[in-house]
Amino acid sequence: MKAVVYQGPFNVTVEEVEDPRIEEPLDAIIRITTSNICGSDLHPYEGRAELEAGMVIGHENMGIVEEVGPAVNRIKVGDRVSVPFNIACGTCRNCNEGFTSACLRANPTGTPGAGYGYPNMGGYWGGQAELLRVPWADFNLLKLPEGKEHESDFTLLSDIFPTGYHGSELAGVSPGHSVVVFGAGPVGQMAAYSSLIRGASQVFVVDKEPDRLALAERLGAKAINFASEDPTEVVMEATGGLGADCGIEAVGYQAHDATGQEHPEMVLDKLIEAVRATGHIGVVGVYMPEDPGAATELAKHGRVAFDYGTAFTKGISIAGGQCPVKKYNRYLRDLIIAGRAEPSLIVSHEVGLDEAPDAYEKFDKRVDGYTKVLLHP
Amino acid sequence: MKAVVYQGPFNVTVEEVEDPRIEEPLDAIIRITTSNICGSDLHPYEGRAELEAGMVIGHENMGIVEEVGPAVNRIKVGDRVSVPFNIACGTCRNCNEGFTSACLRANPTGTPGAGYGYPNMGGYWGGQAELLRVPWADFNLLKLPEGKEHESDFTLLSDIFPTGYHGSELAGVSPGHSVVVFGAGPVGQMAAYSSLIRGASQVFVVDKEPDRLALAERLGAKAINFASEDPTEVVMEATGGLGADCGIEAVGYQAHDATGQEHPEMVLDKLIEAVRATGHIGVVGVYMPEDPGAATELAKHGRVAFDYGTAFTKGISIAGGQCPVKKYNRYLRDLIIAGRAEPSLIVSHEVGLDEAPDAYEKFDKRVDGYTKVLLHP
Amino acid sequence: MKAVVYQGPFNVTVEEVEDPRIEEPLDAIIRITTSNICGSDLHPYEGRAELEAGMVIGHENMGIVEEVGPAVNRIKVGDRVSVPFNIACGTCRNCNEGFTSACLRANPTGTPGAGYGYPNMGGYWGGQAELLRVPWADFNLLKLPEGKEHESDFTLLSDIFPTGYHGSELAGVSPGHSVVVFGAGPVGQMAAYSSLIRGASQVFVVDKEPDRLALAERLGAKAINFASEDPTEVVMEATGGLGADCGIEAVGYQAHDATGQEHPEMVLDKLIEAVRATGHIGVVGVYMPEDPGAATELAKHGRVAFDYGTAFTKGISIAGGQCPVKKYNRYLRDLIIAGRAEPSLIVSHEVGLDEAPDAYEKFDKRVDGYTKVLLHP
Amino acid sequence: MKAVVYQGPFNVTVEEVEDPRIEEPLDAIIRITTSNICGSDLHPYEGRAELEAGMVIGHENMGIVEEVGPAVNRIKVGDRVSVPFNIACGTCRNCNEGFTSACLRANPTGTPGAGYGYPNMGGYWGGQAELLRVPWADFNLLKLPEGKEHESDFTLLSDIFPTGYHGSELAGVSPGHSVVVFGAGPVGQMAAYSSLIRGASQVFVVDKEPDRLALAERLGAKAINFASEDPTEVVMEATGGLGADCGIEAVGYQAHDATGQEHPEMVLDKLIEAVRATGHIGVVGVYMPEDPGAATELAKHGRVAFDYGTAFTKGISIAGGQCPVKKYNRYLRDLIIAGRAEPSLIVSHEVGLDEAPDAYEKFDKRVDGYTKVLLHP
Repeated sequence: MKAVVYQGPFNVTVEEVEDPRIEEPLDAIIRITTSNICGSDLHPYEGRAELEAGMVIGHENMGIVEEVGPAVNRIKVGDRVSVPFNIACGTCRNCNEGFTSACLRANPTGTPGAGYGYPNMGGYWGGQAELLRVPWADFNLLKLPEGKEHESDFTLLSDIFPTGYHGSELAGVSPGHSVVVFGAGPVGQMAAYSSLIRGASQVFVVDKEPDRLALAERLGAKAINFASEDPTEVVMEATGGLGADCGIEAVGYQAHDATGQEHPEMVLDKLIEAVRATGHIGVVGVYMPEDPGAATELAKHGRVAFDYGTAFTKGISIAGGQCPVKKYNRYLRDLIIAGRAEPSLIVSHEVGLDEAPDAYEKFDKRVDGYTKVLLHP
Repeated sequence: MKAVVYQGPFNVTVEEVEDPRIEEPLDAIIRITTSNICGSDLHPYEGRAELEAGMVIGHENMGIVEEVGPAVNRIKVGDRVSVPFNIACGTCRNCNEGFTSACLRANPTGTPGAGYGYPNMGGYWGGQAELLRVPWADFNLLKLPEGKEHESDFTLLSDIFPTGYHGSELAGVSPGHSVVVFGAGPVGQMAAYSSLIRGASQVFVVDKEPDRLALAERLGAKAINFASEDPTEVVMEATGGLGADCGIEAVGYQAHDATGQEHPEMVLDKLIEAVRATGHIGVVGVYMPEDPGAATELAKHGRVAFDYGTAFTKGISIAGGQCPVKKYNRYLRDLIIAGRAEPSLIVSHEVGLDEAPDAYEKFDKRVDGYTKVLLHP
Repeated sequence: MKAVVYQGPFNVTVEEVEDPRIEEPLDAIIRITTSNICGSDLHPYEGRAELEAGMVIGHENMGIVEEVGPAVNRIKVGDRVSVPFNIACGTCRNCNEGFTSACLRANPTGTPGAGYGYPNMGGYWGGQAELLRVPWADFNLLKLPEGKEHESDFTLLSDIFPTGYHGSELAGVSPGHSVVVFGAGPVGQMAAYSSLIRGASQVFVVDKEPDRLALAERLGAKAINFASEDPTEVVMEATGGLGADCGIEAVGYQAHDATGQEHPEMVLDKLIEAVRATGHIGVVGVYMPEDPGAATELAKHGRVAFDYGTAFTKGISIAGGQCPVKKYNRYLRDLIIAGRAEPSLIVSHEVGLDEAPDAYEKFDKRVDGYTKVLLHP
Repeated sequence: MKAVVYQGPFNVTVEEVEDPRIEEPLDAIIRITTSNICGSDLHPYEGRAELEAGMVIGHENMGIVEEVGPAVNRIKVGDRVSVPFNIACGTCRNCNEGFTSACLRANPTGTPGAGYGYPNMGGYWGGQAELLRVPWADFNLLKLPEGKEHESDFTLLSDIFPTGYHGSELAGVSPGHSVVVFGAGPVGQMAAYSSLIRGASQVFVVDKEPDRLALAERLGAKAINFASEDPTEVVMEATGGLGADCGIEAVGYQAHDATGQEHPEMVLDKLIEAVRATGHIGVVGVYMPEDPGAATELAKHGRVAFDYGTAFTKGISIAGGQCPVKKYNRYLRDLIIAGRAEPSLIVSHEVGLDEAPDAYEKFDKRVDGYTKVLLHP
């Protein structure tokens, strides 16, 4: 089959590779109809996260079931399905409790949590390809309505729509709340959009890219350009001086200021400033335990010297981590089917698999409006 | 009246001061029967937190209602009451939602949260004295059974029993959970004890003082002496290699290692190591936004360079802050009355008000077994 | 002042009565700008609930603070405020925990819960009048933005918007859920509307009045006319045969079938049929412990012989009761201010206080489209 | 193998039947070490629930894994395991959300929920036998420590310990709460015991059998003999006139008064009386949609004419249903291992499989202290 293969920093190619096949009785093989490029695909692309050459990448996948193993009894050949980026066994303690993002058995390294397209997440091949092997298929796959409708909405169910929603869940967004989201990339947009779905009264999105901020406004949020405004001041003004009820971190360890310099603690600091005493911060921007490419010695070891003294004094809680997609994807699917959510508003480009190398390059450089790219094999 | 007055670092005296009086229609005056010395009283005592000379100190108070203002209609003269260390108006948004620790109106500086005996918490006089003025008395005071029974249990309801319990709440302790508590001071002991009340299956307490660890064992916990054992190893061994479900930080910004050196990030780091992926950390040890006496430049500004990269990767949440005493004190009181909780197990000394200066000195030096001191005016 | 006075079944008049005055230090006097007629005002109007002749009625009130007692320190003369229909002391255990609907001190009869305009709710005069006395004003009153904007939205904050929202809360409505609401009166409409605000994917409203069903559709719900369709069939069809996640009862003990006969158990039975196994039912339609006018001997004593055997077998929970308005009104107000909620869509008529007798008669007979009437003194 | 076979009302025999075998790739065969007789086994025994002659009965099972199907990858031959009475697929929506009691796929009739030993629960053979087939073994089985320790504690993890705990969960039992449990059978005892584990301050158990009440006292509860005392009076006296925070129904549809007459609504009525306004009732006593042997026409159709009018007025919620064992069994197991729970206190008899007919008879007649019987094949 054809697949996008990681060759090294700033180098992905489309290659003929061996077809995946049923290896375990609970496996399924999916014929991919759409696989998205994710912001976190840029971490290895930019050489900021390890990835071995030769790996098929891509963890945002959907398609049609092509084949199932002999023990699969819920999913059927021909089903249209969304594939959560988490690979989960369905029977360990964490899976039992809904934490498919921390499955204790799917990752042979023993670290909780597995996924597609990363050596340290279990070494499972990714789905930017024609076919994908899905372990524990009955547990992992989400059925979608037959046909081709809503393809570019449903494809966001594998990662960023649930991930943005997870941010709003971790931040405790409830009807009437005010919310401030840092980062207007795809996940930040989905976090803002999810907050509105959950009934927030006002949602602020902070970034410095005018096109991203304009998109946030189209989704119903209020844009704050931190290059020209102080987010805390805007939020305080809009909340009677108290601060936002909820804050969402959708930037991660590579946060940089208006001049382009990296400050891993910057976004947490600003959130602690802008969120009210007793408020909650949800973190879905990625932080890493080790980051050899980081700017400071502390950051190289995952240490983020943010203002925890103020967080404690204000009684602010900070919850974060990878999204357990299965916890949310069913409900977000139903909102799409009912016409009450249309996350594809953030999709900027849809291209064939062969154009992946070009799309990676443009997305990485943030040129030509490359915000969210869907690949159709 | 006689009262304990702060004169400056390492210097408190017992003085004759003016009696407090009803200032507002909702005030009450309490005749103090017991007022405890708190570990956080040592912050100003050691010169690590600001306190102005001449202030009457003491925020862990109980007694008998001596007089009530004309608008008080629930509390009556003669009622035996516990006085939460939080002063709360009862009608602002935060009070409405149970966050009496972040009352928006009781602190004239505008900072959320007020209390007794601190200039930056509203400047209200403390209760290490014969009398205490309590604002919004109907809202703040908890009625106790008449008489003198359980005095040394009930007196812990004003702060450390609820504060320890708050740690277990923030950490999400539920029946069957494993819990690791760092710090075997009075709050840590109460956090461990509360975790057992909540049905934890095993509770570990980490410290390096053998007498404190012995006390933790008497309360039902398992002691870990970090001077001789690695807490993470012990916890991993006892939890099948997964880590504790819940971690409680009961040390704060002055954490020091076995050699006595301060490392504000040390306890959070160890908790992130010892707590399982998807676990929760509750922080009731105090962190400060500004700490001029701190060892490092970061710490002076409340910055705690802990391993947030790993916390994120493990999906661990961190919730902290001062305890909203009213949320818990009623239930803890009922456990004491029913004979199902006996927090006074941790009381080491009960002395008269005149002995306060001596008690402060010994408690600060941790000599003669001074762990928790009750003053009886 | 002028006020609407209950004289007996089917007889209310507008009379000159004595002005209310500050009786307790925490009282406030409100100059009413809007007071609504509530469906539950019809219970005494129709002689189905006791009310003594001479009582000023009306529990859905808003206005401007005219005078405050000497101990009031949050609310100020001139403030525009919404008055929750619950009267609550703010300092008892139930108030502390947010259950202002079950205040233990405001009702001198000792029964938990007090309100305006009912002898058995404390005997407090109602607000269909020029002035209203509000006890514990600092605790009970919700501040609104100055001016006259959103008057017909804000006036619904005193009862039916929060009451409908409470139904959605008791039923556990979360994003993506399917919801079925029985009853398209004002509370049912607000329950459906609140469910949509909370992110429900599909909301069904069941009634037999075409105009009410048309209004539900305008609010975004799907109408089911039970005179011509079986609600269970429609809901099952729309939910893949599983049933709705959540059910809301907004009818109460006077439920009648398409022929007009009363069946107090009918709505609960239909909900238990239409809601999925493991689902939740929230009850905000009123049931009474005693109902002398009821059709059956059981119903006269508040007994509702519904199919609990099936509810248990399906694992369905049933939660109900009067709404604690303060729990929600702040957030619903903020949604109105932000333009994200417009509950006044259900207001049918706005008239002067003098027209109250006529409005009561028409509302009771459900003629001329009388659905929700606002009185402006 | 040898097995207990249902022959008809009041008639069970021990027979040689065919060994179960692996039928599906995810099956396991368990060699039963202990299988308990459950109070609900008496429903068919007394002819009050349908059961077909020839069925092997028994749904409270534990043992050693004898054989696994080819797709089983977590559980291994030789593992000592507890078998939850719920049979659940692990991949449907209800299983995903933790409601293994309402699995949508395990019961071929289409009704949510499956189990061992009932034709209407899927027709799976029970475990009062030497061997048991367990479907979806990786998902359903709970691993226990090797060896023979705690056998009579662990065997209660398959049903009644979690079921009693479920009652306390549905009733919202939290530290400091007062709880009243109706019914001192094994489930009621476990509900009381669980409430104490969860930190209740006082737990009342209501029954009329002195030996059962004495057992409840041994477990730490306060006994109320309703033949000689009014439960409501006792509870009100102990709760300052407010009522219990939480009520648990552990009797079910066959409730009878002190004279032995059946009143299906009696226990719910008494709970609504004894529980405080805003309180919660958890129902784990079984109610049936159809009960041909019931005393009244209403009861024959599952209708329970209890005082819902008062429940609504007091704002009491009522949640009930079969226990999803997997939600709790892991944590209860850990409490047993840690020595913090010893549910076997309620076991009255342990006998061989051959003695099952005799044990059924005595348990049904409640003679010779037969309270909870364990069968050891």
